[in-house]
Amino acid sequence: MTAPLHDTHAAGPGRALPDTQQGMRRRNLARVLHAVSAEGPLSRAAVASRIGLTRAAVSSLVDELIRSGLLEELGPERPGRVGRPGSALAVSGHGPAGIGAEIGVDHLAVCAVDLRGQVRARAERHVANRGRAPGPVIGELTELVHRVVAEAQGEGLWPAGLAVAVPGLVARDARTVVRAPNLDWHDIDLGALLPSAYPLTVDNEANFGALAELWLGDATPHDFLHVSAEIGIGAALVVAGGLLRGTRGFAGELGHVPVQPEGPLCPCGGRGCLEQYAGEEAVLRAAGLAPGEDRVGLLAGRAADGDEAVRRALREAGAALGVALTGAVNLLDPESVVLGGALSGLAPWLLPALEAELDRRTAGPACPVSVSRLGPEGPLLGAAHSVVRAVLDDPAAVAERA
Amino acid sequence: MTAPLHDTHAAGPGRALPDTQQGMRRRNLARVLHAVSAEGPLSRAAVASRIGLTRAAVSSLVDELIRSGLLEELGPERPGRVGRPGSALAVSGHGPAGIGAEIGVDHLAVCAVDLRGQVRARAERHVANRGRAPGPVIGELTELVHRVVAEAQGEGLWPAGLAVAVPGLVARDARTVVRAPNLDWHDIDLGALLPSAYPLTVDNEANFGALAELWLGDATPHDFLHVSAEIGIGAALVVAGGLLRGTRGFAGELGHVPVQPEGPLCPCGGRGCLEQYAGEEAVLRAAGLAPGEDRVGLLAGRAADGDEAVRRALREAGAALGVALTGAVNLLDPESVVLGGALSGLAPWLLPALEAELDRRTAGPACPVSVSRLGPEGPLLGAAHSVVRAVLDDPAAVAERA
Repeated sequence: MTAPLHDTHAAGPGRALPDTQQGMRRRNLARVLHAVSAEGPLSRAAVASRIGLTRAAVSSLVDELIRSGLLEELGPERPGRVGRPGSALAVSGHGPAGIGAEIGVDHLAVCAVDLRGQVRARAERHVANRGRAPGPVIGELTELVHRVVAEAQGEGLWPAGLAVAVPGLVARDARTVVRAPNLDWHDIDLGALLPSAYPLTVDNEANFGALAELWLGDATPHDFLHVSAEIGIGAALVVAGGLLRGTRGFAGELGHVPVQPEGPLCPCGGRGCLEQYAGEEAVLRAAGLAPGEDRVGLLAGRAADGDEAVRRALREAGAALGVALTGAVNLLDPESVVLGGALSGLAPWLLPALEAELDRRTAGPACPVSVSRLGPEGPLLGAAHSVVRAVLDDPAAVAERA
Repeated sequence: MTAPLHDTHAAGPGRALPDTQQGMRRRNLARVLHAVSAEGPLSRAAVASRIGLTRAAVSSLVDELIRSGLLEELGPERPGRVGRPGSALAVSGHGPAGIGAEIGVDHLAVCAVDLRGQVRARAERHVANRGRAPGPVIGELTELVHRVVAEAQGEGLWPAGLAVAVPGLVARDARTVVRAPNLDWHDIDLGALLPSAYPLTVDNEANFGALAELWLGDATPHDFLHVSAEIGIGAALVVAGGLLRGTRGFAGELGHVPVQPEGPLCPCGGRGCLEQYAGEEAVLRAAGLAPGEDRVGLLAGRAADGDEAVRRALREAGAALGVALTGAVNLLDPESVVLGGALSGLAPWLLPALEAELDRRTAGPACPVSVSRLGPEGPLLGAAHSVVRAVLDDPAAVAERA
């Protein structure tokens, strides 16, 4: 499974499946599973009325989904209704699980999410990955994956796929890290290093963060620009509920938008890139602090304590973000901008200057900016949920592997 | 017909039509017409083999398209082939025509394009429209439309629709000009001012220019950023062969991307917007020339004559375009950038500085930049062709009106 799983969601349940009798059954399996996932517990009759199929057709589809371990029966519905009591159906809490993983500049994290969207196992390790060779990093990540999979299996779940978020550009093959400057990785085929037991998808952390926001956020629109940051600053563009990936898969490099054409040289080769003003290390430098672990925690703590140098540095970072986002909003006309990832923890000090720049530079009503509720967990959750979404979108494919 | 006609093309011939017996016939009419349009003249048998329908089915569809005046028979094919000679089919040169119109800051233009893509009538008037009320401008444009339609009718064509390119932001209703700063128009419903005899589509000139490039350009990719300019600088993003319009239809405002955050104030409310460095009037100012008509001709003439002040002004404009495009390329990862509209006439002097900025600011291979062969005719041709494309995409809808 080399295609990015989560993109299929943009087309709706099972839309990409072939237009044959068998394809139609696969699409209908997806419609049943999506209906129960979105509104369950539901009886067979309620599913039939929601998706417009006969009760008999739905029963046959439900039976197949129960056999595959994707749906389960909760027992008879409460009495007091007209007719013979039906059994309520729910998405299985013991079937396939999405395994999400995140490679950060100074941490590794893995989690398992069940079909109900619950995180059932999680492991994390703080480790300085910058400049480390990919082999040992992926070795440690694989240990965490095995630990999380074992824990999930102990609860009756089985891994339906592994999705890995990386702080860098990923090729459209969804496994090759083309460039991750803050790890110092170039052209690394993660598919060759990760366990081959599960279908694999590798994607940029900003993309997974945006998908998490789309799927799990509160009333997130279907057209938005998601900005996230660790040391680098990435963005992801969601258009009509799908990711805009660009020709090579490199869209969203907000961190290298020039905000001061003759500003400081950036490792990317440019000058005055946003990252030179609003990246975590640039902010630490401007505040006179040494880089280390938990940079966001340090900055947030000092800012909350009223440290004026830190607050000024964050204001300047917010203003630089506002300039870069003015350009992005002029080009893309999104419905909103969402600040996610590590940035969300600094929002109280970044937002006022960011919004002031956006307001004064925008004719008409400025684009609204909100802060992600998911915060730094976004990319990891987006990765795990992308696997879950793929199961909901084509349950038959999973049943074949079960 | 308020929906933007041309967007339907992104989905392919007739894809948006309903999934019924009648819908299937409408889709098949479109497939026949597209096949003849793309590869004709073709016999019925050749059409059948190209689109995978039986000869009998194709004959019935062809008969309907001939009755509607969309196809015509050229007479028996040349002998020497096996079997009974068939009659070659061609797209009609006497059926519906697309009427394109352009409202420029100092010109009005209208043309009629037949189903074969040939311009069959054209009228243009040089007139200073800046600050003029919409009523008189549209009155003059309507005169030109009537003149072009009469000329087309004299050749046996009839107008299938009118598409109007404007230098401003157009609402998603495809008839309201929300803001055209260089005309000083705000919230003008062109639908109420233009003749109601034809289905109407109003769109931004950069969007029509990009569609012309997509449909008529030499080997244009399906993902590109099209930059065009008159006094304003607009861009249009083509993604997977369709326009990215933005939430309100305002995407592509490259002219208001900040290139010097503390640069000169722009009428949009921003500071240091690209238009302040690379708009035609900014370039004239930097070159010490007075604004007037035919600004591009003046600049190109002086530059060709070796006027160093003009060449320097164009180099600086090219560099500013390079900075703004670096940001756009980082955000969107297009396959290429195409310079169109009036800008294309200045490309020899803009391009070197533009490409130098893009190269030095981009890690890895820079995004290729090309110059549109259509030049300033792009928006007008794109408008007329959008009507022709709508006919090819759903011939049954036109036949109903014929």
